[in-house]
Amino acid sequence: MQVYEHRVQYYETDQMGIVHHSNYIRWFEEARTALLRQAGVGYGEMESLGIISPVVEVSAKYVSMAHFEDIVQITTEIVQFNGIVLALAYKVQDKKTGELRCTGKSRHCFLNRAGHPISLKKEQPLIYTMLTSAFPDPHRIQDN
Amino acid sequence: MQVYEHRVQYYETDQMGIVHHSNYIRWFEEARTALLRQAGVGYGEMESLGIISPVVEVSAKYVSMAHFEDIVQITTEIVQFNGIVLALAYKVQDKKTGELRCTGKSRHCFLNRAGHPISLKKEQPLIYTMLTSAFPDPHRIQDN
Amino acid sequence: MQVYEHRVQYYETDQMGIVHHSNYIRWFEEARTALLRQAGVGYGEMESLGIISPVVEVSAKYVSMAHFEDIVQITTEIVQFNGIVLALAYKVQDKKTGELRCTGKSRHCFLNRAGHPISLKKEQPLIYTMLTSAFPDPHRIQDN
Amino acid sequence: MQVYEHRVQYYETDQMGIVHHSNYIRWFEEARTALLRQAGVGYGEMESLGIISPVVEVSAKYVSMAHFEDIVQITTEIVQFNGIVLALAYKVQDKKTGELRCTGKSRHCFLNRAGHPISLKKEQPLIYTMLTSAFPDPHRIQDN
Repeated sequence: MQVYEHRVQYYETDQMGIVHHSNYIRWFEEARTALLRQAGVGYGEMESLGIISPVVEVSAKYVSMAHFEDIVQITTEIVQFNGIVLALAYKVQDKKTGELRCTGKSRHCFLNRAGHPISLKKEQPLIYTMLTSAFPDPHRIQDN
Repeated sequence: MQVYEHRVQYYETDQMGIVHHSNYIRWFEEARTALLRQAGVGYGEMESLGIISPVVEVSAKYVSMAHFEDIVQITTEIVQFNGIVLALAYKVQDKKTGELRCTGKSRHCFLNRAGHPISLKKEQPLIYTMLTSAFPDPHRIQDN
Repeated sequence: MQVYEHRVQYYETDQMGIVHHSNYIRWFEEARTALLRQAGVGYGEMESLGIISPVVEVSAKYVSMAHFEDIVQITTEIVQFNGIVLALAYKVQDKKTGELRCTGKSRHCFLNRAGHPISLKKEQPLIYTMLTSAFPDPHRIQDN
Repeated sequence: MQVYEHRVQYYETDQMGIVHHSNYIRWFEEARTALLRQAGVGYGEMESLGIISPVVEVSAKYVSMAHFEDIVQITTEIVQFNGIVLALAYKVQDKKTGELRCTGKSRHCFLNRAGHPISLKKEQPLIYTMLTSAFPDPHRIQDN
């Protein structure tokens, strides 16, 4: 679990005067890449090893509205990781008030250079170990 | 049901060489606003009447990857409309091959200028009627 | 010279109620890639030959404001092309009224896979010929 | 003069494997709004007083390429401020190496609620004074 902060930019607002909903999907990515970077296995490292990790599913529920110059805190949790699938959950809250803005989920797989799904556990055991060590919570990381 | 076409732009790609997943959420919006515009009740018309229709929920499942210069066809269906909630489903397919790229859903409510949820049926009966006439499918439009 | 049309999307607006200025830079790209595609030498074709054509300079002057659902027409002109540098000029106008929204310029070079600048005339004469044939105006295309 | 930091996000890359050029225009805005916020006269404050400050001109020269996860430092300077026009210059450098990525400029005017250009000096003397006090360099701030 990690808290990532983002300040709302002017270019992220729309004519409703609030943050355009598509930006939360981008913030999930910001928080996710920060989490993996902190675990020592950033997207950059993975891509240099020939692994890409595309988004397979994403969803968001919008609870209240973020505005320009607000600072939001995004809490990210690993919900599932077994080397084949990585699933995360996100909670976006206003930093000042704690008010919940948005919750979300994303699901990812791992592909090799040829674009085929792989198991990190088998094909990149070092990365697999680094990720499981970084996120050791047994309730959240399931090794099916 | 309506088919909306979008040509993938260079700025929509990411360093994986594919369309960044957040853009599908924007394409859903493109397709949705085109659908409402065609029904004569565009976002512009609604906002000039003091109604905004924020996204309450959005989700996407990514099936295959769209690339720069591909033309995608987005089929949009009204799944629910009762004047309080509008729910839509999206299907993104490659124009040339028909291959499925992505499916998605979104859910919207209607707010007045004060930011309070309203029932279009009660407060904007003309818009309500225009929308129900434009999308008359009884299986899809439920008037609870 | 080619006219490219773009309909303003909701996600392109900002809380001023107008199109965010950064999107014009993206529209220039839309118009530019359409122009090259029409000439038979799209970015896709060039990249498959190992040539990338990054933006070296871009500028925009904002004259009036485009709004959601407006259709803008972007007129693109090749200002210079000598196989080493490609320079274009853009004019964005409202389709309905003809009102000028924005003018702009961009400058591009050509790089090979190693990231080194190349002369298309020497290293990709076929592409050079296709581009000069597509845009033969002697006043605008200078072969220094 | 202020240095603003931005970490390159995945969604800011394009299929060239570098930051899409349009994002630098957005980073200029990030740096500019941070500068004004620090001076106590943020865009938010101005808009709540009925003043908007649209971009009249923007330009960028791309010198070298920023990549995913790079941290860039953006140095912003007020080049001109007379209450009618605000002009800024930007320098984007890699944080680690200091390498220059991009330089840029932007020019802004001030409009009232009716959309008419105003002189801050006459119509919002407090804001004018706050901005001139925050950026007192006589060589750069010209009061024509």
